[in-house]
Amino acid sequence: MSIITLLTDFGTNDEYAGLMKGAILSINPSVTIVDITHQIDSQDIVQAAFTIYSSYEYFPEGTIHLVVVDPGVGSDRSLLALKTKKQIFIAPDNGVLTLLFNEEKITSLIRITNSRYFRSPTSRTFHGRDIIAPVGGHLSVGMDIGKLGTEIDLKDAVRLDHLGAQISENGELVGKIVAIDKFGNLITNIGSDKLREVFPNVPKRTFRITTGVHGITGLLETYSNVPLKSPVALIGSRGFLEIALNQDNAAQVLKAEKGDEVRVKIQNY
Amino acid sequence: MSIITLLTDFGTNDEYAGLMKGAILSINPSVTIVDITHQIDSQDIVQAAFTIYSSYEYFPEGTIHLVVVDPGVGSDRSLLALKTKKQIFIAPDNGVLTLLFNEEKITSLIRITNSRYFRSPTSRTFHGRDIIAPVGGHLSVGMDIGKLGTEIDLKDAVRLDHLGAQISENGELVGKIVAIDKFGNLITNIGSDKLREVFPNVPKRTFRITTGVHGITGLLETYSNVPLKSPVALIGSRGFLEIALNQDNAAQVLKAEKGDEVRVKIQNY
Amino acid sequence: MSIITLLTDFGTNDEYAGLMKGAILSINPSVTIVDITHQIDSQDIVQAAFTIYSSYEYFPEGTIHLVVVDPGVGSDRSLLALKTKKQIFIAPDNGVLTLLFNEEKITSLIRITNSRYFRSPTSRTFHGRDIIAPVGGHLSVGMDIGKLGTEIDLKDAVRLDHLGAQISENGELVGKIVAIDKFGNLITNIGSDKLREVFPNVPKRTFRITTGVHGITGLLETYSNVPLKSPVALIGSRGFLEIALNQDNAAQVLKAEKGDEVRVKIQNY
Repeated sequence: MSIITLLTDFGTNDEYAGLMKGAILSINPSVTIVDITHQIDSQDIVQAAFTIYSSYEYFPEGTIHLVVVDPGVGSDRSLLALKTKKQIFIAPDNGVLTLLFNEEKITSLIRITNSRYFRSPTSRTFHGRDIIAPVGGHLSVGMDIGKLGTEIDLKDAVRLDHLGAQISENGELVGKIVAIDKFGNLITNIGSDKLREVFPNVPKRTFRITTGVHGITGLLETYSNVPLKSPVALIGSRGFLEIALNQDNAAQVLKAEKGDEVRVKIQNY
Repeated sequence: MSIITLLTDFGTNDEYAGLMKGAILSINPSVTIVDITHQIDSQDIVQAAFTIYSSYEYFPEGTIHLVVVDPGVGSDRSLLALKTKKQIFIAPDNGVLTLLFNEEKITSLIRITNSRYFRSPTSRTFHGRDIIAPVGGHLSVGMDIGKLGTEIDLKDAVRLDHLGAQISENGELVGKIVAIDKFGNLITNIGSDKLREVFPNVPKRTFRITTGVHGITGLLETYSNVPLKSPVALIGSRGFLEIALNQDNAAQVLKAEKGDEVRVKIQNY
Repeated sequence: MSIITLLTDFGTNDEYAGLMKGAILSINPSVTIVDITHQIDSQDIVQAAFTIYSSYEYFPEGTIHLVVVDPGVGSDRSLLALKTKKQIFIAPDNGVLTLLFNEEKITSLIRITNSRYFRSPTSRTFHGRDIIAPVGGHLSVGMDIGKLGTEIDLKDAVRLDHLGAQISENGELVGKIVAIDKFGNLITNIGSDKLREVFPNVPKRTFRITTGVHGITGLLETYSNVPLKSPVALIGSRGFLEIALNQDNAAQVLKAEKGDEVRVKIQNY
């Protein structure tokens, strides 16, 4: 009853995600494969880092996650296999797993070198199909992760800097929009943990959230806490601060874009 | 060999549909999950109502359908579990199941209240992941639907009015476009049953179908019954009146939009 | 452990692909269904022909491929079942399997006529759901392909002409862009085999590839062989000549479109 997930920037117009599934099923025909999404913006490692971090815990113990956002494919960047207490992650060594490095207890971190588990011949432009998928297939039938290559130190893996929100000189918490979902909701990198840490014991109604020329006072619980089409700030289902409109598209109405700054302070009365 | 389907307005850009699958597999790792579509227009309950109605009978007995088009998520709207003779449907109590209420013999209708079968903690903005998916997972391993909450009367469930076509004062059948498919075909809410009922024993060639400034005479069988790029009216694969162009995009060429009126009368000679 | 793949031009906005899966699972609830893609451009048989040809070998022996790009649905075009040494293909007799006819050793080619294996009633506009899916389901439980209809001669199946690149009078190899992927990479119909055949023993650095006003000298191995945003020509993961930009979108920057001509010659010094 093995489960493999796919998280890529391949889109679904092309056959790429399908071929990864074919390569996996060629090794383990009884595995269950789940698409997390294939619509990460092309080569956006940061967006992928937040997406895998917001997703993995909803999958059962033993799940193997294949993360293929890989602008350096075919270069000398290497591939990693990360084992935590409960799950396994395969990804390029480009920082896409940074948030897991910070959060999870790591039981094994391998630099993948053993081409015995690769598809042969191995293309230089599609390691998702020719390396990551077959490696996932082999792990899903119980192969020991240690066979994939050499154990490395966590400090030798690439990390992304400044993924989370930062505190500014005047005490504001400054983050940015890292994803805009299909409903136009603006999802930030400002975690609920960080908010509690920086503003402990502060009433939710005193928060002041701004992005561009728009400001919202108060953190609420759900979209329908405000009138139709009105803006609302809340902790979204990812556990991060989110700016939305009740049954309307915040990105369009507020003219917000991925990367835009979002600031949080406490309202002065 | 349980089967769960998903019908949502989540799109596929985000991880939302994937997380529902993770939540289901966390309870029943051997279930088969099928996407009907995730591309219902955001919060369009009417479109979703027609889509589930046009889809369910193509799935085997015992299938569990999860319908998540849920503009009221986090408000006091409730969730329903509907059991018919052959299948089960889980959806918000917002009318999305109206066409099934009209059509199917209902053996049980439950207002879902038993949080024992929810994910904990339960977010206020993503009941698809935290309630509907785990409830579906539990049902798929054979849990009795009665455990989910209280049996209610069908008259106490929310219904959508005027979903179907109406007869006008001058005897025309007046409907609208409820979906435009990827080929640009205009799919209406005018069912073949309704056509037969309103215009019994009428030769198909005498039908006159109009939308906007465009009119088509005659109901045909398939796209290739007319020359390339020509308009055709037919009963589509959903069992509803459809206006199409043979190998061209009717929505673009006829400048038609979802919601546009479509009228049917009998041609006067 | 049967596997069925789907390759269609249905898109994912509508319920069509989901209903094919329902129809398959109604016959074989334990089959694994894989989407290759549903985003073939509407009615583009050539694009579909290249996609199935570039995909099938990545799936295990015994896989059944359902190809539904079917502009002639409901006309008198017939449906084919093709069995090769390792796999089975079901598709309209419209040439979409041409590249397999050229490549694979065929053990059986059947014109499908036996309506016993169709869904009843059979719509005139959706043979994917009502014929191809149930036929695939029956084959996946081991039904003999011969039961589907009459064995025919390969010369009686429709073929597409001029799918591959051609040699011009001045000795250039002339092909075209047959697909543009999500990254904007321009994928041609110029196969690596054809290149080796036409230009044997020629150093890779002497190739000159042109499309529109743009020219590239040399065939390289992978995107990162050139500086960021620079153009590169390489044999892509499909085994065909591809023009790309390193971490940028070649289609947008070079203003290239599907169907554009691509020419290959040997650079004169």
